[in-house]
Amino acid sequence: MDITSSRLVSGAKCTVAYPDIEAAALRLSNQASQTPVFVSRTVNQITHSQVFFKCENFQRTGSFKFRGAYNALAQLSEAEKQRGVLTYSSGNHAQAIALAGKLLGIHTTVVMPEDAPAVKQAATRSYGAEVILYNRLKTNREILGQTIAQEHGLIVIPPYDHPHVVAGQGTAAKELIQEVGSLDLMLVCCGGGGLLSGAAIAANKLSPSCKIIGVEPEAANDATRSFHTKMLYEIHNPNTVADGARAPSLGQVTFPLVLRYVHDMVTVSEEEIQRTVVFLWERMKIVVEPTGAVAAAALLGGVVAMPNSRIGVIVSGGNVDL
Amino acid sequence: MDITSSRLVSGAKCTVAYPDIEAAALRLSNQASQTPVFVSRTVNQITHSQVFFKCENFQRTGSFKFRGAYNALAQLSEAEKQRGVLTYSSGNHAQAIALAGKLLGIHTTVVMPEDAPAVKQAATRSYGAEVILYNRLKTNREILGQTIAQEHGLIVIPPYDHPHVVAGQGTAAKELIQEVGSLDLMLVCCGGGGLLSGAAIAANKLSPSCKIIGVEPEAANDATRSFHTKMLYEIHNPNTVADGARAPSLGQVTFPLVLRYVHDMVTVSEEEIQRTVVFLWERMKIVVEPTGAVAAAALLGGVVAMPNSRIGVIVSGGNVDL
Repeated sequence: MDITSSRLVSGAKCTVAYPDIEAAALRLSNQASQTPVFVSRTVNQITHSQVFFKCENFQRTGSFKFRGAYNALAQLSEAEKQRGVLTYSSGNHAQAIALAGKLLGIHTTVVMPEDAPAVKQAATRSYGAEVILYNRLKTNREILGQTIAQEHGLIVIPPYDHPHVVAGQGTAAKELIQEVGSLDLMLVCCGGGGLLSGAAIAANKLSPSCKIIGVEPEAANDATRSFHTKMLYEIHNPNTVADGARAPSLGQVTFPLVLRYVHDMVTVSEEEIQRTVVFLWERMKIVVEPTGAVAAAALLGGVVAMPNSRIGVIVSGGNVDL
Repeated sequence: MDITSSRLVSGAKCTVAYPDIEAAALRLSNQASQTPVFVSRTVNQITHSQVFFKCENFQRTGSFKFRGAYNALAQLSEAEKQRGVLTYSSGNHAQAIALAGKLLGIHTTVVMPEDAPAVKQAATRSYGAEVILYNRLKTNREILGQTIAQEHGLIVIPPYDHPHVVAGQGTAAKELIQEVGSLDLMLVCCGGGGLLSGAAIAANKLSPSCKIIGVEPEAANDATRSFHTKMLYEIHNPNTVADGARAPSLGQVTFPLVLRYVHDMVTVSEEEIQRTVVFLWERMKIVVEPTGAVAAAALLGGVVAMPNSRIGVIVSGGNVDL
């Protein structure tokens, strides 16, 4: 891992608000799954609280990413739909864009690292997307993606730094709170901050006293540093098992939202992530990928505790290569 | 594996009826989980039918066995509860008895094969049961269990051949049909026939035109042979990955019920079971043990097909050693 330029951010504008999440929920109502909320007696006993796991591993394509991808693609003009869409992703956003494109009749191209799990590459192709592989250590995916998009006139839908993507991801937290009622604390994993900022906007509106905490792998703590210093840190190619949290930094859209709506950021160790994956598999019988267990790891690893409270945890994805 | 004595059965009495399942459901209402029913667009597409997976892997102790165990223990007299309970089980019934005993304040002893998965042994002990290990190839567990029970005056609650156990297991199918409506076909795995016969009684009452098919591993096809010949076949120590289906035969309670309420029995290969486990993990994101995938394997392996119909599949358990 290498940490690069930190940029000062001052008063950037928030480009997503709660009505955008409501509109996204309408767009998604017949397309995304209303994923189940799981509770575990064991977890409640361990944490002395009532914990609600919003299981986005059961979402279409196996992660919350379908929400943002579909919400973004559904808002393209007819002319844009004709041109086609390109994205870059370590996997889950890729599958999400591929399926959303298939459902909406839009040709999709995905720029994906060549070491992305085989199951994610195969799933992306199976939804009909064109996959272009690159070497994660040698090539900057954003620059490669922009180049290809310009050459072929494609619309770029980035994995998190886009208002429509953020609004789509926020629907997961909206569903959770509307199903179980108000929360005292919500834990959300953070890669580029799309899910985190969307969830924070929703929780802020629907459960105003709820504290929202973003969770990152220790090795990829760029957003935690950025949050605490208000300067944008980047970490390239962090060494973490949570591949969905490898985004180098928060974005121009997500950073201001995280600063405004999120109450704190914490990190979890690789060991805590792995232990939590095993716990969720063995005890709760759900297949969760490492990134999907990051938020839960903060609670089960004891990094965050709030006894006698109602805690929401977003389990963000379940795509693993068995 | 070795196949032993087949005994002719003629007109044995059915000792469980639907009201017993209703009564069990009442007893279990605050103790067992109402497990979720999962649907999968992919499965519906593959099978050209509407498939409802009743996910007993999410049941307390990780399998449907808790239903029968609790229903049996809750009906003991105070004097019997004082004496304590013994059972023999390859694992899931053991954990179920252990937890039911803990909840009801009953001391429990479990006779378990020494090669039972470590996670099942540990879970059984963690619920407070006393575990006695035996060598599966050298010792008959029923005889060992009966001997210990007589010595210590313990009540034996066998894993399937008991009316209260059968009635408890039937509540899983009752919940499924009451949640999703009538079915055309229900697939249920079969070890000793406790779940199968209970589910068949419930389906017969609540969805009278529903065909109930029991599914066994090919290597443990004693119940399939027994069903077709009306003679009780036994297979000892069958070589199957589905450890919960290793029961040597249907029982005195379950055989007449299976003959009366079940419409057909089929078998699945080890390969089909393994492939189905991977499918359920990778595509449906649920942790299922091999035995838990046996019923689904009949459908996903194409052994049974009923296009344009409503099919219930019981996913019976999710206890695996990772």
